[in-house]
Amino acid sequence: MTDITMIEAAAARLAGHARRTPLLSSPFLDEIAGRRVLVKAECLQHTGSFKFRGAWNAVSALKPTGVLAYSSGNHAQGVALAARLHGIPAVIVMPADAPAIKIANTRALGAEVVEYDRATVDRDALGARLAAERGLALVKPFDMAEVIAGQGTVGLEIAEQAAELGVAEAVVTVPCGGGGLTSGIALALAARAPGMRVVPCEPEGFDDVARSQAAGQRLRNARLTGSICDAILTPETGDLTWPLLRDLCAPAQAITEDEALRAMALAHDRLKIVLEPGGAVALAAALFRPGLGDGSGPVIAVASGGNVDRAMMARALAT
Amino acid sequence: MTDITMIEAAAARLAGHARRTPLLSSPFLDEIAGRRVLVKAECLQHTGSFKFRGAWNAVSALKPTGVLAYSSGNHAQGVALAARLHGIPAVIVMPADAPAIKIANTRALGAEVVEYDRATVDRDALGARLAAERGLALVKPFDMAEVIAGQGTVGLEIAEQAAELGVAEAVVTVPCGGGGLTSGIALALAARAPGMRVVPCEPEGFDDVARSQAAGQRLRNARLTGSICDAILTPETGDLTWPLLRDLCAPAQAITEDEALRAMALAHDRLKIVLEPGGAVALAAALFRPGLGDGSGPVIAVASGGNVDRAMMARALAT
Repeated sequence: MTDITMIEAAAARLAGHARRTPLLSSPFLDEIAGRRVLVKAECLQHTGSFKFRGAWNAVSALKPTGVLAYSSGNHAQGVALAARLHGIPAVIVMPADAPAIKIANTRALGAEVVEYDRATVDRDALGARLAAERGLALVKPFDMAEVIAGQGTVGLEIAEQAAELGVAEAVVTVPCGGGGLTSGIALALAARAPGMRVVPCEPEGFDDVARSQAAGQRLRNARLTGSICDAILTPETGDLTWPLLRDLCAPAQAITEDEALRAMALAHDRLKIVLEPGGAVALAAALFRPGLGDGSGPVIAVASGGNVDRAMMARALAT
Repeated sequence: MTDITMIEAAAARLAGHARRTPLLSSPFLDEIAGRRVLVKAECLQHTGSFKFRGAWNAVSALKPTGVLAYSSGNHAQGVALAARLHGIPAVIVMPADAPAIKIANTRALGAEVVEYDRATVDRDALGARLAAERGLALVKPFDMAEVIAGQGTVGLEIAEQAAELGVAEAVVTVPCGGGGLTSGIALALAARAPGMRVVPCEPEGFDDVARSQAAGQRLRNARLTGSICDAILTPETGDLTWPLLRDLCAPAQAITEDEALRAMALAHDRLKIVLEPGGAVALAAALFRPGLGDGSGPVIAVASGGNVDRAMMARALAT
């Protein structure tokens, strides 16, 4: 299990390697929300998302001679760069129909990309064979203690940066797919800023966390495609993340695609940062859910990633 | 005259008020440039540009009971916010045909906007009358020692942040209009990072700095409109800034509109920051002028502002 000691150990490993991303704000966003809004701009992290933190921590802590990951998105780039900076090989298993730009970016970060046909190949069997043959360690996208601890360093920084602004009590909204980032932040804040309450944010129609919280047991999403918030689409939360989401977090909020796009446009206009749809859902909750918490006091929104293609950003700017 | 002592005094005044903006990088940009590229993301400063620094320093140092500025752009917003945070009134004199969004933003930051008809009203006479009647102090956009000192704090941060990365020698490219930011940075680096050399960057067709440097005397731009780089269009450099540009800087580089737009798109893709055309010219020089300096070693590009409307960003993303 991940705990605050592991998160602090992760922070020590990340020091000088991950960026301490800024906590941004704009009086224009405060006015829209009707309360103070602070934005943790994790899109400015290496590889454009928080995923670098967990990947770096896992590689630093476990010291594998090589790593393997399944991902067509942000996790792939985080693992690729963390491995390259540690001087070890990374193999990323990606579906052959993944966007060419994502495959190219992952290769450009030094990883070996192994493509497979989703229709005919068993990904897990392929990965297990590659890992065994080459002595590679699997770095999971969220359900792994070292990964949760690495993402939790975002929470440590939020606690410190908010304290510098005199903020001890706040609602903290976090984009939530498998729950690695959300549960890591919740753990860190429970220990270091107990006046803050974490609200997981997920795409409308993919609200497994909200439904799981209401049912008191882990439920799955019915679908895995059909949202522009691709970075946070997962079948279900993890064995490690689900209990933390259940025990430490406020009820999850579902965000519409239109709200995510409008939050992207406002982040462009007012914060000068680039967000992807899945990375903008927590800002959307901060801006468009005035009743969060007790409806007053600050909201801290985690802007978790900015790996959006130009066409999607142009779509957001046209909203 | 501004000197390093004034810049350090400005840094002390700005501490806890201006953001210490991050120095960003991407391996993808390094590959385009063929050298290491570091980007000082001053678009993340309050009000979306470096202008807040000089305005804050002038107001803090001079302690006026109210301020006046002429500007339809970034300087207006910087002065408006600095005045509001000091609890003093700001009057911004703007042409009535300035973009409605800029007038609205300046008002939303608490300033009183006085509109005038460019065709029939003498702006300077109007401003002088308002200043006399109301006891307001003029905050000039660049040719003022306290303003140059405030902008020079960008240079102090560059010296410190580069040193943390082990970089002591570099070419530093800076967007240059009137020269307040460029000369302030040049002064700071001459004192704190003498291995760095500042290259002013200006829009093609508005290359008064390059022509002035070549002629050994201050020359004017023939035109004042007709570039998308509106943030850095000025008739000429100032009485205070020109000698610093002449004595401390390498020859200025002229950047095309297409290059500025491509740099905006790459900043979007690779750094996840939003730049306006005038704020992107130094990044364009870093990426597209491979021979700067001795053609090797790091380039540090100042990304000076991000106040771009959605249509212009969409145009950049379509390049």
